[in-house]
Amino acid sequence: MPKIEHIGIAVKDLDEAIERFSTLLDTSSYKTETVASEGVATAFFETGDSKVELLESTNPDGPIGKYISKKGEGIHHIAFEVENIQSEMERLKKEGFDIIGGIREGADNKLVCFIHPKSANGVLIELCQDKG
Amino acid sequence: MPKIEHIGIAVKDLDEAIERFSTLLDTSSYKTETVASEGVATAFFETGDSKVELLESTNPDGPIGKYISKKGEGIHHIAFEVENIQSEMERLKKEGFDIIGGIREGADNKLVCFIHPKSANGVLIELCQDKG
Repeated sequence: MPKIEHIGIAVKDLDEAIERFSTLLDTSSYKTETVASEGVATAFFETGDSKVELLESTNPDGPIGKYISKKGEGIHHIAFEVENIQSEMERLKKEGFDIIGGIREGADNKLVCFIHPKSANGVLIELCQDKG
Repeated sequence: MPKIEHIGIAVKDLDEAIERFSTLLDTSSYKTETVASEGVATAFFETGDSKVELLESTNPDGPIGKYISKKGEGIHHIAFEVENIQSEMERLKKEGFDIIGGIREGADNKLVCFIHPKSANGVLIELCQDKG
């Protein structure tokens, strides 16, 4: 049974969103990180055993830029932590889930892959494994 | 610092979605519950310290029915667990967050209230307190 590692929220202005979520969650962001390969700047908040990740696009053609153009701000994905991303990805492929691309480097020292929302009732699912 | 109590996912067909998420999460739903006052049938999965809640509308004019008509299936809300929902709601009101309605009974033996997505970067936020 995987745990929710984080929820990713697409925002237009990271600084504004950090301030708002700091007030909402009554806690400060503990880390910001830019992932150039994904075209995002991120900020993380601890929320119990899981995290909230705010994502601002640094590239209008990147996934978050496109998402906001189409749907506006909001929840972009749920990430589940897995112990072995390779075997979990293969299990889900066999079960008919549509994996987008393959395994790659994500924020927060993780290997990640994504399951297409069409395979999961409209939800973009991230699997992530800590690189240790 | 609140924890993520659950993520609510709006689905068209609860039985189909239960089967899909059972495969995806590699675990069974541990509970189903209908909340007549909200017009929803729900199913819960344990995911670490948090839960995934699938929501099917039992009433096309209810919040989930309207959501799916407008946006399709997908993540509907994030719920954060709070110790005292009354004081937390009042704190957030004073901070300028727009509370929808007030505190009411939710699924899973909870008192709940909702913060409008316009106040929270497009995210519908639920606060929930265990009724004990």
